[in-house]
Amino acid sequence: MDKVTGIQFESLATIGPTGISRALSYAHENRAAFIRELMDFIRFPSVSAGNYGAVSKCAEWLARHLNHIGMERVSVIPTKRHPIVYAEKANSPGQATVLFYGHYDVQPAGRHDAWQTPPFEPVVRGDSLYGRGASDDKGQLFTHVKAIESFLRSSGKLPVNVKCIFEGEEEIGSPNLGQFLLNNRALLASDMALISDTSMPTPDKPAITCSLRGALGIDLEVSGPAHDIHSGIFGGAVRNPLHVLCGIIACLHDKTGRVAIPGFYDSVIEWSRQARDYMAKTGPSDETILKNAGARTGWGEEGYTLYERSTLRPSLSVTAITSGTDTARGANAIPASAHANLDIRLVPNQRSDEIGRIFHNYVHAVTPRSVRTAIRIRTAAKPAVTSVSHPGVQAAGKAYRLGFGKRPVFLLSGGTIPVVSMFKDMLGIETALMGFALPDDGKHGPNEKLYLPNFFKGIDTIIHFLGTLAIHNRNDDGRRDDH
Amino acid sequence: MDKVTGIQFESLATIGPTGISRALSYAHENRAAFIRELMDFIRFPSVSAGNYGAVSKCAEWLARHLNHIGMERVSVIPTKRHPIVYAEKANSPGQATVLFYGHYDVQPAGRHDAWQTPPFEPVVRGDSLYGRGASDDKGQLFTHVKAIESFLRSSGKLPVNVKCIFEGEEEIGSPNLGQFLLNNRALLASDMALISDTSMPTPDKPAITCSLRGALGIDLEVSGPAHDIHSGIFGGAVRNPLHVLCGIIACLHDKTGRVAIPGFYDSVIEWSRQARDYMAKTGPSDETILKNAGARTGWGEEGYTLYERSTLRPSLSVTAITSGTDTARGANAIPASAHANLDIRLVPNQRSDEIGRIFHNYVHAVTPRSVRTAIRIRTAAKPAVTSVSHPGVQAAGKAYRLGFGKRPVFLLSGGTIPVVSMFKDMLGIETALMGFALPDDGKHGPNEKLYLPNFFKGIDTIIHFLGTLAIHNRNDDGRRDDH
Repeated sequence: MDKVTGIQFESLATIGPTGISRALSYAHENRAAFIRELMDFIRFPSVSAGNYGAVSKCAEWLARHLNHIGMERVSVIPTKRHPIVYAEKANSPGQATVLFYGHYDVQPAGRHDAWQTPPFEPVVRGDSLYGRGASDDKGQLFTHVKAIESFLRSSGKLPVNVKCIFEGEEEIGSPNLGQFLLNNRALLASDMALISDTSMPTPDKPAITCSLRGALGIDLEVSGPAHDIHSGIFGGAVRNPLHVLCGIIACLHDKTGRVAIPGFYDSVIEWSRQARDYMAKTGPSDETILKNAGARTGWGEEGYTLYERSTLRPSLSVTAITSGTDTARGANAIPASAHANLDIRLVPNQRSDEIGRIFHNYVHAVTPRSVRTAIRIRTAAKPAVTSVSHPGVQAAGKAYRLGFGKRPVFLLSGGTIPVVSMFKDMLGIETALMGFALPDDGKHGPNEKLYLPNFFKGIDTIIHFLGTLAIHNRNDDGRRDDH
Repeated sequence: MDKVTGIQFESLATIGPTGISRALSYAHENRAAFIRELMDFIRFPSVSAGNYGAVSKCAEWLARHLNHIGMERVSVIPTKRHPIVYAEKANSPGQATVLFYGHYDVQPAGRHDAWQTPPFEPVVRGDSLYGRGASDDKGQLFTHVKAIESFLRSSGKLPVNVKCIFEGEEEIGSPNLGQFLLNNRALLASDMALISDTSMPTPDKPAITCSLRGALGIDLEVSGPAHDIHSGIFGGAVRNPLHVLCGIIACLHDKTGRVAIPGFYDSVIEWSRQARDYMAKTGPSDETILKNAGARTGWGEEGYTLYERSTLRPSLSVTAITSGTDTARGANAIPASAHANLDIRLVPNQRSDEIGRIFHNYVHAVTPRSVRTAIRIRTAAKPAVTSVSHPGVQAAGKAYRLGFGKRPVFLLSGGTIPVVSMFKDMLGIETALMGFALPDDGKHGPNEKLYLPNFFKGIDTIIHFLGTLAIHNRNDDGRRDDH
């Protein structure tokens, strides 16, 4: 089965409305257990940028759990770094096949003192569950797992064929996923993919994400003296790599907030007035974005709303600076080298190789000759835009209406999910991005949370999605789910 | 004894040339033991910027050692942070009294992988002893201790009265030393101070340091969003505190390498042509300084040699940048805040409060309104210039001729020893700076070393210094030790 097929909406439905009702009842009756299990899942400090052991243990737990709920061919598949967990329930040859993707790895927790409660000791406070990975992505991945469980435990089968790949390297740029997909195209052949790793604007405003930015992770290093040197003995006589690095970073943007690298915007597509009007009508306001960021004022490219600046437009962020052989604050030393991590977010039709090239040329041009610079491309992921008229996306829209009681909006995200463009390029399938996180969930920051009503409605929505795919893409209310 | 007296060069010498010879013989016979003991001393990771325990244990070891060699009134005196070790042998009321100062704390070792051998496992390779603190300042402090021991073990007494204070907070700016000096002026009353915590240009070019720069340690923090935020979701729409911090740092110097803060140079004294000629004749060349720094080209204020830029002229160095709640390289986050450590080196007649004030005003003026800055003065130490005609400095010159066989040069140092100006202001005494380190010793960097021939000659030189002070300031060769 090398060639993937179109979605089989006309195929025989093995589970009808009664099966969906049974699955929903099961999900509603088992909410307390679902939270307990999710807390077990969050307790693993599966930081992909950190040590191998904790990530691997988390993968094993997830595999056992998938086996326990009745999934088949469950396996923990090693990669060069962190393993991929595979599972399937795909023994209805006439049915559509959905490829579920999620990631069980998490961002580093950061300084634990910024957390109200420890990041890997999940607790429920109010309506939310707090812990690293609560929403990004363990909680959302769990909506898939619990929707599957609800069908399997109530009817013994799923409405459609399901294959799951749960990755352990998303937060470090999915370095080994592409090769895995290429090596396993037959195993993974599906009609569409489903990912829950995005957000909705507010709890009563469900959303399907139809655009993601790409990401280009760059390490920039400036080297000066052969070793760290005493800042008293040599201060004023030898060029300091940290000063040079700051000078380079200071000229990456102009005063208006535009990226100053010549050519950076050359291949950026301009969106239609119609699309921007839809964004203005349906998307977050500047005020909402600032509130979510905890910032007082906006910044960036003139002529665009904050929503547009962070989705339609590319961006460049320095995310960390380190220096020397010693980063201790007590050291009075001019460091031998200074290092910056840059995170460039790409939009169509920017190409990561081209942007990497002009970045390199620009840095070279502005670097004084008394130091050396080195540039390393750490990660590269393409931007991805999903067609809103895709039947799987339409089915997702219907599922939201049933799960949340509201028609979803189509949202653009500034974030990156590398696998979306990989699925398109390597497996030839589109992805429905059905996110249940909220903008104030604190993804990548301290006190990350999952809003539990969204977790429960998310499970219902995935149940409806699978049911809808199997029954037909007919709209019960006679309207089409477009915008 | 509140008022300190002048040096009693005419007082009765209790130890004559024979006593000096005996002390030298003892020192020469016990070199192997001296190295073993110094290695024990270096094994304590007495990082004052680090944890309390290791520093305190090192103080206790040093106190036991001083007691063991025959010093009196040995005590470990607590401060708010790290203790001061006091000892004396001061029971000859008619004799001059010398206050020995050294510090047993060390800089952080930095990344251990930059060291050829672990920083706190000292080893002898070739002619040098490697380990953190080998030259800064444990090895040099030990020249005092071993010179004292050599007299006490060979003659049972010292040529002059000696008081020792060995500090545990020099590398963090001596925050509690001033109060200790003020509280103990009677106990510490002396005729002059002796410090070995400076360098000589080459092993055959002994030097007395006659000028030190002051130091002003500043923490600069830029705060933006209320918490770390996802650099994909918000990148391009919210101002990044790291970008702002880099922009501020980039405009602290102009393109020529001069500090760009208005008024920074206003009170800097200009040195005479004569003094600068002496420096050109006796001090390190640009090439030597670059070799010691491991740098290819010089940098800084036009119109001054590298030696002058790093001694006569003030400097401003950023020594570290940190950011956000998470400094892990894997985190794709715009940090809530970014922090820089600055090390400003002051020269006469710059005042730290005035420089702090204009720094504050300048940063305020160049900071965009969408972020907040906070500035904290971490440490402040005055510059210090010692008169080369002071009789104690002249005695030091003679001791070098006897210990190294060469007339010493007078050197200016870009470094800071906060206690020198404190001794002048609080105890009313001048300090002879008799340093035995070498410029390539790697102070504050990895692979710090002590050149052992200098260690041995340093001990001999201190023995001669104490003997010379006691005998008379007569020059055996009829020449005066000036330049």
